[in-house]
Amino acid sequence: MDGDRVATYIKGFDEHLEGGIPRGHVVLVSGTPGTMKSTVAWNLLWNNARQRGLRGLYLSLEQSERSLMDQMNKFGMGSKGLEEKLTIIDLGTIRAEMARAEIVSDKENWANVVRGLVGDAKEQKGLDIVVIDSLEAYELLFERAISRNEMFQFFEWLRQLGITVLIIAEMSPDSNRYSKYDESFLADGIIHLKLSEVSDVDVQRRIRCVKMRGTRHSPGFFNLLVDGQTLAITKTILE
Amino acid sequence: MDGDRVATYIKGFDEHLEGGIPRGHVVLVSGTPGTMKSTVAWNLLWNNARQRGLRGLYLSLEQSERSLMDQMNKFGMGSKGLEEKLTIIDLGTIRAEMARAEIVSDKENWANVVRGLVGDAKEQKGLDIVVIDSLEAYELLFERAISRNEMFQFFEWLRQLGITVLIIAEMSPDSNRYSKYDESFLADGIIHLKLSEVSDVDVQRRIRCVKMRGTRHSPGFFNLLVDGQTLAITKTILE
Amino acid sequence: MDGDRVATYIKGFDEHLEGGIPRGHVVLVSGTPGTMKSTVAWNLLWNNARQRGLRGLYLSLEQSERSLMDQMNKFGMGSKGLEEKLTIIDLGTIRAEMARAEIVSDKENWANVVRGLVGDAKEQKGLDIVVIDSLEAYELLFERAISRNEMFQFFEWLRQLGITVLIIAEMSPDSNRYSKYDESFLADGIIHLKLSEVSDVDVQRRIRCVKMRGTRHSPGFFNLLVDGQTLAITKTILE
Amino acid sequence: MDGDRVATYIKGFDEHLEGGIPRGHVVLVSGTPGTMKSTVAWNLLWNNARQRGLRGLYLSLEQSERSLMDQMNKFGMGSKGLEEKLTIIDLGTIRAEMARAEIVSDKENWANVVRGLVGDAKEQKGLDIVVIDSLEAYELLFERAISRNEMFQFFEWLRQLGITVLIIAEMSPDSNRYSKYDESFLADGIIHLKLSEVSDVDVQRRIRCVKMRGTRHSPGFFNLLVDGQTLAITKTILE
Amino acid sequence: MDGDRVATYIKGFDEHLEGGIPRGHVVLVSGTPGTMKSTVAWNLLWNNARQRGLRGLYLSLEQSERSLMDQMNKFGMGSKGLEEKLTIIDLGTIRAEMARAEIVSDKENWANVVRGLVGDAKEQKGLDIVVIDSLEAYELLFERAISRNEMFQFFEWLRQLGITVLIIAEMSPDSNRYSKYDESFLADGIIHLKLSEVSDVDVQRRIRCVKMRGTRHSPGFFNLLVDGQTLAITKTILE
Amino acid sequence: MDGDRVATYIKGFDEHLEGGIPRGHVVLVSGTPGTMKSTVAWNLLWNNARQRGLRGLYLSLEQSERSLMDQMNKFGMGSKGLEEKLTIIDLGTIRAEMARAEIVSDKENWANVVRGLVGDAKEQKGLDIVVIDSLEAYELLFERAISRNEMFQFFEWLRQLGITVLIIAEMSPDSNRYSKYDESFLADGIIHLKLSEVSDVDVQRRIRCVKMRGTRHSPGFFNLLVDGQTLAITKTILE
Repeated sequence: MDGDRVATYIKGFDEHLEGGIPRGHVVLVSGTPGTMKSTVAWNLLWNNARQRGLRGLYLSLEQSERSLMDQMNKFGMGSKGLEEKLTIIDLGTIRAEMARAEIVSDKENWANVVRGLVGDAKEQKGLDIVVIDSLEAYELLFERAISRNEMFQFFEWLRQLGITVLIIAEMSPDSNRYSKYDESFLADGIIHLKLSEVSDVDVQRRIRCVKMRGTRHSPGFFNLLVDGQTLAITKTILE
Repeated sequence: MDGDRVATYIKGFDEHLEGGIPRGHVVLVSGTPGTMKSTVAWNLLWNNARQRGLRGLYLSLEQSERSLMDQMNKFGMGSKGLEEKLTIIDLGTIRAEMARAEIVSDKENWANVVRGLVGDAKEQKGLDIVVIDSLEAYELLFERAISRNEMFQFFEWLRQLGITVLIIAEMSPDSNRYSKYDESFLADGIIHLKLSEVSDVDVQRRIRCVKMRGTRHSPGFFNLLVDGQTLAITKTILE
Repeated sequence: MDGDRVATYIKGFDEHLEGGIPRGHVVLVSGTPGTMKSTVAWNLLWNNARQRGLRGLYLSLEQSERSLMDQMNKFGMGSKGLEEKLTIIDLGTIRAEMARAEIVSDKENWANVVRGLVGDAKEQKGLDIVVIDSLEAYELLFERAISRNEMFQFFEWLRQLGITVLIIAEMSPDSNRYSKYDESFLADGIIHLKLSEVSDVDVQRRIRCVKMRGTRHSPGFFNLLVDGQTLAITKTILE
Repeated sequence: MDGDRVATYIKGFDEHLEGGIPRGHVVLVSGTPGTMKSTVAWNLLWNNARQRGLRGLYLSLEQSERSLMDQMNKFGMGSKGLEEKLTIIDLGTIRAEMARAEIVSDKENWANVVRGLVGDAKEQKGLDIVVIDSLEAYELLFERAISRNEMFQFFEWLRQLGITVLIIAEMSPDSNRYSKYDESFLADGIIHLKLSEVSDVDVQRRIRCVKMRGTRHSPGFFNLLVDGQTLAITKTILE
Repeated sequence: MDGDRVATYIKGFDEHLEGGIPRGHVVLVSGTPGTMKSTVAWNLLWNNARQRGLRGLYLSLEQSERSLMDQMNKFGMGSKGLEEKLTIIDLGTIRAEMARAEIVSDKENWANVVRGLVGDAKEQKGLDIVVIDSLEAYELLFERAISRNEMFQFFEWLRQLGITVLIIAEMSPDSNRYSKYDESFLADGIIHLKLSEVSDVDVQRRIRCVKMRGTRHSPGFFNLLVDGQTLAITKTILE
Repeated sequence: MDGDRVATYIKGFDEHLEGGIPRGHVVLVSGTPGTMKSTVAWNLLWNNARQRGLRGLYLSLEQSERSLMDQMNKFGMGSKGLEEKLTIIDLGTIRAEMARAEIVSDKENWANVVRGLVGDAKEQKGLDIVVIDSLEAYELLFERAISRNEMFQFFEWLRQLGITVLIIAEMSPDSNRYSKYDESFLADGIIHLKLSEVSDVDVQRRIRCVKMRGTRHSPGFFNLLVDGQTLAITKTILE
């Protein structure tokens, strides 16, 4: 695997991506509810920590650290033994930080605290990868809709971090847009997860790379499987 | 069945969910009108009370306790003999409580009274499961549209209860979103009920688990049947 | 037929509904223009009056009593001889009442007069069934859009009448919602009438029960026929 | 043909309508551009004048009397010899009337003048049928969107005229609604004209009766043909 | 060909239109981008000038005269030798006129100048045909959205010119409406141009007459071809 | 190849376009995310510089010069040795220019600086081609939505430059419009890039020319391939 690539550790998919995601890319992981977005992102973080020693930060704005870990333990991807490599920040962490620093809990401060915590983690631990779970939950911190311009500023700030960023975005089942903010042109890559109704009752999980700057890849779909504790793709249609 | 799971008591479906819903999850039960959402939720509450002694609260904001019981008696799931285990709160109960406590009937108070009643029930009886029927009716208490942020606060409050919560959400026949509030990313799980038009005249009831954190499950649909007094799924297509 | 059911007197459909609509239910009769909503509702009122002596009120807000009777005479369902059992209130009646009582014709008063007339009819004649034709026309009395909360209040008021209520709702040909107010979760039942384009030129009338609390029924469609002076369903596809 | 019916003089269609449109009905003639709405309406007026001596008024708000007559002469349906029976009012007539009566040309006055001209025509000539061509052009007289309530008032006014009224409504090619005002529940009948794309290149004209109070009819489509100078329907699919 | 018709000079299409567009009609030429709307309109103007001596004005609001002529020369339809018959007005002409007459460049003046230039051209040269390319570009002169009423006034003004008018309207690929202003009922005719995807890769150009007052025509589609320097239609499907 | 054409250097496509894009045209390059819009535009700029000595400017408003060059080096299209011919301006360049000239960073100034930089480049280096990547990113400089009129002004300004301009526009996956601004009628040409789902899993890249003033071309789709370091089209369907 290429040294300037961050592998996804989805078996078969990295070859498809010429080794993985180019370092420093800001990538959307987009899908409707139930498409395993968090699992795909944590799987990347966990395997890169264990196998390549990369340091990761998981910003869990939808669920608590404990709920996330319960979920990931089910897939055999607990954080035990990787505490040095993997950091999880949830809303509880953020609230505690605000209490400690005696920061008033208003919308602008929330965003600043989040940025500060990410910045500190980067400085103190030398981050390689950040996952933001999710863009929708991040917006909720603001207590109002984010403007297109603020979204642009947020992406600019992420990009200047100089590290690889995965942003989880929940697609609406009524739309084909990769996120409701239509900011996909700001991202360097888009990984699209989908539930595909292959018959009246059968539904399959699919993955594809829609866009990945600096990477030659086909835009087709693959089946996404959980094979034991490993995520893998297959081109064959299952029944 | 797993001790840290709340079974749905839909025959065949629990095996599909590795034993049921993880305890402490906040789960949406979503479907268009006529998909048996209330029956699925009450069936879970009633069977867990009868067979495993779990204590449940049914917040019936659409219909009165009597109307709900008339409906459930038809399926042989009356509350007789389970009064200790099952509590039903309807709009009448809430109004009576407000009169008793001399609370002015304004929108904010309604929400506080609901929270208070649920909190009291939890404290006094040791609740294991709460059903909210429904999110749409809950919003009507406010006499105005709920903001995304208020919905977030509501889910946060439910989650800190530390008990398993089912929230019934009515989907619009014009949309594939699991509820009109687009808050599905706030839920730990989504159970989707559907009327599927299999021919020009035949319509079947379907159920699937779209999302269940910490659970391995396929995202496919099953037929949902009422077999005597038992809910059950089958993969075979009926005619 | 069950004593606690109000039969629809659509041949074949009542068996499908375990005898008919449970007494006291508030039921939507929904369909696009031309689906025989008024005929289905009057047929129920007329037959229940003639065959079971039930007393009915038809609130005709779209057309005058005379126009309605011209229409129903065509189907052999005139009100002659049933004057004791069947009351029709149209806009003319309401206007006359307002003149008599010297009530100013403003929007709130209209709604109050309607409620008053229904209340009086119930008190004086002992109503069993009320038909409101239609929800859209009722809204026009207000001279503005009705809020979701007002619709809720209206349904609550209907429910506390303690009698069976049919509400005719006109669906838009552009939507699958059972009425434009999305209040279907407030109703105890939904009977759906539809024009089904079975070929490029052939169109059939269909009926189904989408939802009926306390009733076991399949959600499938039936053909709706006018057989002489009798409404009937058939499962066979006509050509 | 029935004395209480106004025949459409579309060969085959009147039998389908039990003789035609019941007298006194307010009927929508709805279709997208190019579906021959004006021709269908004029054909009814012209034939009823010639063959049954009925008196008609054509309110031509889209085109001038001369343009309308050029168009109808093409189908052999000129007004020559029928001047006693047929009156055409176009925008020019209305403007002249306003000048004569020294009425200021503001929006409310326009509507009043239109109503006055129709009322005068009825009083002086004993009208049997009025055609309004079209609802959209009528709205333009107001120089603003008409509210649902104003549309209701307009229909009520038409209905109290006690004569048969055809209202031409232009459907949007993007919608299945019979007019953009969604007032179809206010009409006693709806005649729907349609361009049906039967193949990639072939398009056929279709007609159906969606709704006609007091009339038994099937809701299916027929081909609408111009056979010499006669409009006719056929059930056979043409190629 | 009929003397009271303006031929389109699209081979085969004029026969289909009983000789062409009736003189004095205001006709929409509607289609999505790339459907040859300008070419169809210029082809009509150019051939009528060359073959029948009719005088035409092309109001080119999207592109400059030079760009238009470059485009038309490609099809062998240059204006050389026809300067007496054909006038082109583009934005440059309009700006020059405003400078000459020392008119302030505000929105209302623009519209007045356009009307004035068309009026002058008509008076001085005796216009037979005007093309407006396009309705969308005309609206841009106003620097704001045109109201439905202003659009009506514009059509009325065009109609009182007493000459044949073609108005090019760009349809949105997301809609079937013949222009975004929904003013198609104001037009005497609609010629619809379309890109039809006949397979996954093959796309054909199509033309049809949707509506043409005073003309008997079928509403079906034809292939639109460029045969050398001649536009022509064919009913046969090409591959 | 024609001297008054700018070749696209997509093998096979130029023949289809009679040699390429007419000089001086303003052309949209439109497609959803992942359709290789930037690669197609840079490929044109790079090959015209290398093979025909044309001077190009790439306005990279989405990504930095370095990120763009990393991406293009992957396709063997680095700028090394072409520094004289190819200029890249990114947000960093613009910010530096503003700092240098002590310009306040407000929205109007940004647009002016962009125009100034393009104007300077044209004057100093004699530009032949400009690429704007992208219209959406350009709008973000304004920190608000651009009005239709401002978009018109922008296109007018581009057109008066007298050089060939490619504007990259990101289409929404929910729409068929060539850009969200609906300004396609302002462009002289539209090149449409598309991801076509040819089966449940296979997705192919497609290209077509929707519109190109002054050019005869078919409107059909071609497969777009990367053959080594060359872009090429093929009509054959791949599997």
